[in-house]
Amino acid sequence: MRVKIGEETREVRTLWREGRTVWMIDQRKLPHKFEITATNHHAETADAIRNMVLRGAGAIGVAGAYGMAQAAMEAEHLKPEEFEGYLETAAERLRRTRPTAVNLFHAIDRCLRAASGPVQERVRRVVSEADAVAEEDLAASRRIGEYGAALIGDGFRVLTHCNAGALAFIDYGTALSPIRFAHRQGKKVFVYVDETRPRCQGARLTAWELQQEGIPYAVIVDNAAGYFMSRGEVDMVIVGADRIAANGDVANKIGTYEKAVLARENGIPFYVAAPRMTFDLGCGTGDEIEIEERDAEEVLGMWGVGEDGAPSRVLIAARGTPARNPAFDVTPARYVTGVITEKGVLRPPYSESIRRTFGG
Amino acid sequence: MRVKIGEETREVRTLWREGRTVWMIDQRKLPHKFEITATNHHAETADAIRNMVLRGAGAIGVAGAYGMAQAAMEAEHLKPEEFEGYLETAAERLRRTRPTAVNLFHAIDRCLRAASGPVQERVRRVVSEADAVAEEDLAASRRIGEYGAALIGDGFRVLTHCNAGALAFIDYGTALSPIRFAHRQGKKVFVYVDETRPRCQGARLTAWELQQEGIPYAVIVDNAAGYFMSRGEVDMVIVGADRIAANGDVANKIGTYEKAVLARENGIPFYVAAPRMTFDLGCGTGDEIEIEERDAEEVLGMWGVGEDGAPSRVLIAARGTPARNPAFDVTPARYVTGVITEKGVLRPPYSESIRRTFGG
Repeated sequence: MRVKIGEETREVRTLWREGRTVWMIDQRKLPHKFEITATNHHAETADAIRNMVLRGAGAIGVAGAYGMAQAAMEAEHLKPEEFEGYLETAAERLRRTRPTAVNLFHAIDRCLRAASGPVQERVRRVVSEADAVAEEDLAASRRIGEYGAALIGDGFRVLTHCNAGALAFIDYGTALSPIRFAHRQGKKVFVYVDETRPRCQGARLTAWELQQEGIPYAVIVDNAAGYFMSRGEVDMVIVGADRIAANGDVANKIGTYEKAVLARENGIPFYVAAPRMTFDLGCGTGDEIEIEERDAEEVLGMWGVGEDGAPSRVLIAARGTPARNPAFDVTPARYVTGVITEKGVLRPPYSESIRRTFGG
Repeated sequence: MRVKIGEETREVRTLWREGRTVWMIDQRKLPHKFEITATNHHAETADAIRNMVLRGAGAIGVAGAYGMAQAAMEAEHLKPEEFEGYLETAAERLRRTRPTAVNLFHAIDRCLRAASGPVQERVRRVVSEADAVAEEDLAASRRIGEYGAALIGDGFRVLTHCNAGALAFIDYGTALSPIRFAHRQGKKVFVYVDETRPRCQGARLTAWELQQEGIPYAVIVDNAAGYFMSRGEVDMVIVGADRIAANGDVANKIGTYEKAVLARENGIPFYVAAPRMTFDLGCGTGDEIEIEERDAEEVLGMWGVGEDGAPSRVLIAARGTPARNPAFDVTPARYVTGVITEKGVLRPPYSESIRRTFGG
């Protein structure tokens, strides 16, 4: 992604590896401060995942893989059984950081399987598997951008929800990747950014990414999306996904379902952008997806920075106010115009297009 | 409305008059602090309206009327021409506090017209007209509650948006009045309270009113309303209105339109509660209603209280982030199941039912 640093604009990834060092953008400080931090040991990488220095399915998966690469290098001179034990322990530590991140488990497991080769090869194999996880993430985001950009007409006003941007992956993102590519191709694109309560990833992260890239946008409260749609001021909606069932039902950040219903009501195409890893073919329909309810504190308060620029939280409601806080919702497949993947744009009926593209 | 003060629960109105003194709940301090403040001169009442010590169409109208009553008493011993001039100046001062509050203008004009009687009667007439404005507001809210409560079944889970509660009027409110009456009749009612970004009147005011009244509720982010609707956990939606056109189109707080579309999509009745004064028969359809866009700062930040309990604001997005901030939206009449008024529940076709009830 493009990041303005002083007078310059540089290409920066969300995280990358150099030897035993993993570098990453500290997303907790965005958008108020751009800072890159480093970890030199797998335990530090685990801490970074747990403390949400980075977030987003792709980024977490790659961080887990890089953590395994660090562990393998740390264990280089151990005996075979000890090496295996060290890696298992590291894997367990990395897994426990975000216990619902399916993607993290897959990435760690891939690295563990790669470790079971000849002794002299084992470190190189784990490290190269970790790098492959990262490269695949990057390639998928790039292809999603290429396929998706073809759907964006010149002058389009696109609405997006939450942050399915470069920061959630290694680069480019999913929902933001087509927008980024269309912009780089010279198309005029304007983006409505839902602030995305309760954690405001839209206002904080998506707005920041667009601003860095020089793409025109406006942040709106989640309540205002329908207003702009009803006035014919939105040409297209693109969102990311946390999990897609075999029938095309989409679990994503709370509020996605609302935007999908409003888009259909107003005749606006509603696209989901997601790589292969987001599809859960073992999950028949959205009804099988359990929705996590998070702490009420997220609803009752808001984090930001105060007048002095220091991180600060305000309480909106009275202390002890009851609140409900579902983190995700499920958008039934019938509201989805298409799913933009690294293999092309899937169309209904999704049971068939998903199976044909990713099944078996 | 019921308010818990120490161990006791007392009946308190949003504002009331005792001689030349107007008492009012300081809504800027809610929900963190319950405080009643007084004004003893019409200029102080004007300041209170301007500074949003109170807000809401009904409450502002009554405050304007009470301000006129204060002015009449202040001018008691003036000569007829001077009396008239004093009242005109007071009216102008009160009008300028909230230049888009139609209701405020009506209330002030009523009091001005009442002043044009015999000299010895003029003060009494203005004061009694101001009291009539208040009593009519109270009676309308009460009847809306009675008519609306009949629509609420035992065990209903009702969703509401923004604050159309007692605090927006003299007492009871519009959207909250049926809920209040159903609860007082012994029905079990649960309320989902949309927080209502950007100003969070739901989380701040509606939640406070329900808590004081002992009605079970939960605050949710605006994004979560569709989620609960789609799971069959909402039986009914009731919202207030800022302005209703002759064809039944409803202008109300931003986000109302989204909830209306989602309610219809999920087969949930969507009611609007509003008194006669909200209907603008000179406005043919919602297309004629101009939507105010407010300052971007409301979107980019959030007011609340800090850890120390003092009022505080956090900035969510980066400083200077572009934002759009429409304050209201228009819900087309076709999404509205019924309009609960002090004359009963109006049903489609609204052009007819509105004309029959309030026309001519």
